[in-house]
Amino acid sequence: MYIILVYDICTIEKEGQNRLNKVMKLCRQYLHHTQKSVFEGELSEAKFIKLQNSIKNIIDFNNDYVIFYRIDNKNNVKKYNLGISFDPTTNIF
Amino acid sequence: MYIILVYDICTIEKEGQNRLNKVMKLCRQYLHHTQKSVFEGELSEAKFIKLQNSIKNIIDFNNDYVIFYRIDNKNNVKKYNLGISFDPTTNIF
Repeated sequence: MYIILVYDICTIEKEGQNRLNKVMKLCRQYLHHTQKSVFEGELSEAKFIKLQNSIKNIIDFNNDYVIFYRIDNKNNVKKYNLGISFDPTTNIF
Repeated sequence: MYIILVYDICTIEKEGQNRLNKVMKLCRQYLHHTQKSVFEGELSEAKFIKLQNSIKNIIDFNNDYVIFYRIDNKNNVKKYNLGISFDPTTNIF
């Protein structure tokens, strides 16, 4: 299955920056960092569940969100990007 | 077709907040505001093209991005939300 992950981690407090770094580090182990707060890629069912559970242990459920869009066949989604494309090696957010 | 729109408008400068407000106002005319920087909904081909062209006239191509994921059949995408859900009536970003 193809996964599109979009997140918004509240970094108003310092602890939020730690959560953001942890979520980014974790997501990079599973998916491609395609835009500032967007990851994409193919995942097995088992890895999808594992990623969700790992993220649940990091985020603040009162201030952060992570959305997963699951598309079983990658050919069923087309992507259009306007504006800056993203170089994952630049980690300045 | 079903559209998922994800954006990130750079608001470091004051002008960026104007662009953000314009993009949000525009997107609300076409799609549902489902998360802080995410809109979703059904669009015709004509409206999809019109929305893209309108956004092109607003964003700063060097600092902002808007991604459209186009899924022709809404049944081909499942959504999982972790963390805060979103009340579009609260416009505080």
